[in-house]
Amino acid sequence: MSNTSEFSTPIRLSERTHKMRSSAIREMLKQLDTPGMISLAGGNPAPESFPMHLMADLQAQVLSRYGHRALQYSETEGFAPLREAVAQMLRNQGIPAEASRILITNGSQGVLDALAKVFLDRGTPIGLENPTYLGALQAFAPYDPLFVPLECDAQGATPRGIHSMLQNHPRSLLYLMPTFQNPSGRSAGLTRRCEIAAVIESEQCLVIEDDPYSALRYEGDSQLPLAALCPERVLYMGTLSKVFAPGLRLGYCLAPAWLFPWLVKAKQGTDLHTGTLVQAMAAQYINAGHMKIQLPKTCELYSKRRDAMLEALDIWMPSQFHWTRPQGGMFLWLEGPEEFDSARLLPKALALGVAFVTGNAFFTDSCMGSHCLRLNFTLPNEAQIHEGIRRIGQALAA
Amino acid sequence: MSNTSEFSTPIRLSERTHKMRSSAIREMLKQLDTPGMISLAGGNPAPESFPMHLMADLQAQVLSRYGHRALQYSETEGFAPLREAVAQMLRNQGIPAEASRILITNGSQGVLDALAKVFLDRGTPIGLENPTYLGALQAFAPYDPLFVPLECDAQGATPRGIHSMLQNHPRSLLYLMPTFQNPSGRSAGLTRRCEIAAVIESEQCLVIEDDPYSALRYEGDSQLPLAALCPERVLYMGTLSKVFAPGLRLGYCLAPAWLFPWLVKAKQGTDLHTGTLVQAMAAQYINAGHMKIQLPKTCELYSKRRDAMLEALDIWMPSQFHWTRPQGGMFLWLEGPEEFDSARLLPKALALGVAFVTGNAFFTDSCMGSHCLRLNFTLPNEAQIHEGIRRIGQALAA
Repeated sequence: MSNTSEFSTPIRLSERTHKMRSSAIREMLKQLDTPGMISLAGGNPAPESFPMHLMADLQAQVLSRYGHRALQYSETEGFAPLREAVAQMLRNQGIPAEASRILITNGSQGVLDALAKVFLDRGTPIGLENPTYLGALQAFAPYDPLFVPLECDAQGATPRGIHSMLQNHPRSLLYLMPTFQNPSGRSAGLTRRCEIAAVIESEQCLVIEDDPYSALRYEGDSQLPLAALCPERVLYMGTLSKVFAPGLRLGYCLAPAWLFPWLVKAKQGTDLHTGTLVQAMAAQYINAGHMKIQLPKTCELYSKRRDAMLEALDIWMPSQFHWTRPQGGMFLWLEGPEEFDSARLLPKALALGVAFVTGNAFFTDSCMGSHCLRLNFTLPNEAQIHEGIRRIGQALAA
Repeated sequence: MSNTSEFSTPIRLSERTHKMRSSAIREMLKQLDTPGMISLAGGNPAPESFPMHLMADLQAQVLSRYGHRALQYSETEGFAPLREAVAQMLRNQGIPAEASRILITNGSQGVLDALAKVFLDRGTPIGLENPTYLGALQAFAPYDPLFVPLECDAQGATPRGIHSMLQNHPRSLLYLMPTFQNPSGRSAGLTRRCEIAAVIESEQCLVIEDDPYSALRYEGDSQLPLAALCPERVLYMGTLSKVFAPGLRLGYCLAPAWLFPWLVKAKQGTDLHTGTLVQAMAAQYINAGHMKIQLPKTCELYSKRRDAMLEALDIWMPSQFHWTRPQGGMFLWLEGPEEFDSARLLPKALALGVAFVTGNAFFTDSCMGSHCLRLNFTLPNEAQIHEGIRRIGQALAA
């Protein structure tokens, strides 16, 4: 479809709509049903980590405890017991969190959507890592902000890059994923975090710290979130998708007091509130200690899968290819020589029965990153990972 | 808080945020926990209508049938079995519906949000009844469209008003609730619907037909939706909140083929997709015939409550007050003499232990409707309704 015909509709679409990006991943998901296809493309947790055997009890407990309240409309802010449980989780990570500033959303995408609504006019500057999370680009791009790519190194955004952005654009938003970043797998160490905290402490700004993966650590020490180091400058956001189940669509954020009511108002117009029943079940899952029991098992599973992928890459990748070795999370990032084009590799790979996401999907400028690709290691098992990487090697050789 | 201080924040908010309306209702909900308070304010279904006793079976069936798929990420468009079930429901109402054009959303608010994103720039005209649904105003207002109030009579928007609006603003959107309108309780008869269909048939336009209540009919004949009379000009939207349970947050729309992909793209950036588990349970609830069994029971319950309210109003309201006598739905609309101010009545009523929503909340121009108020008759029981109306009468007399 040409651009012209694409936008020629009986009723005029908003300018915003012309800026909407589709998710390369979600569109590809539909192709992944082909029998034998190995998907290294999505960001799906392993079904083995889902609490299938607990669901009946969780629901029964919730219905007996809250009765019809579990099926009724509830507050936009979130179901109180879940807000409490999330606040406690965050305090355990060193973040000074009060339940009264926790907003429960439809996945962490719901936080990104509310932030975009509350902050972004055309041209509003927002600093971000490049590559960055595709879902954030999807939430932000329709409002046509000024994306300011931050200088990055192997630990993500540099303090110098953040400082320089805030000099050029004072009182700005920054969107960072300091731990096991999606898509790169990069993480900032403690020194880096302290340096970033010092920079943002000294400037008026708001850092959106997106932290979906820090519970999925397979080696190395836990790192303090920026929200623990510099709470008054940080909106901290997370999700239960990776540590409970993604199909329940539960995300959350801890917002500064001045911002909280605006996010609530934005969410009210978007969906009234997040599902009461699933919120109550999640609170029960956390409070009964199930999450604490499941997490180490999930980490052990994923750790082996990550190792399998690193091993397979060592075997099957040509010598000009390099990749990250993340200590946790769900992804690693593969970089080929400059002339390599992952978009040309993809159809060959799909034909051989393996899927990945091309690097350009994660850049604000989709001309960038074409020599890169993102690989997921949490959904496929070890044998599938070996076979998938072998097929990519084969597609590269073709 | 003055306007200035309200918007003086460390980081600049978007212009959109300044246009956000809070829901008078959702804000008041927080006060309704006072013991003895009778709420005629919300739009809550009666808990007696919830399938409490079926929830365990529904979940067990879904988990056994779909396994871990019920807890995994799923398609933005919606869970296929629910899209099929909804399409069948719509076909039963005479609407030519295909599952491929059904989008499942987080409550019908999710449809309104997606429509607002896809269509509304500053100044985009949108025609609506006045008063109209508060949630629609909340979804639309942040984008600063041009609200065009349509001429209305006892059956809602008039064909003449719609025609005149489309002459002034060709190729426009209209937002209509032709059946048991929230807040007025008004409904359009068949002749009116056919006349509206003829007008929109002859013009390029898109009518958003919001139909949350048509299944809740207590007397009179079912009326064909506009989507049955003129399908190519109508986006039909509905909800399972009133016929299953609102706390699951399930809404849907049937969109014209040209519009469907844009709504999907907008929703992708908003929340990725609606919860898989609750979608699967809803499909099971509908397909197993539970909805068909429950609906007449719910209608019988609500019908008695509506009668109780009409009876109580006859007893307790002064002679200058008038009200609608809806054949279904959840609300009726009370109109006092011009000098009556429902905002001044509200604190007195709350002090006497009864809550309602002031009329001005439902108008695009909040100076209008101040002599009106909205009353809900589905949540309180008959005794509470009698007592609640008696208290309003008492507050009026004070």
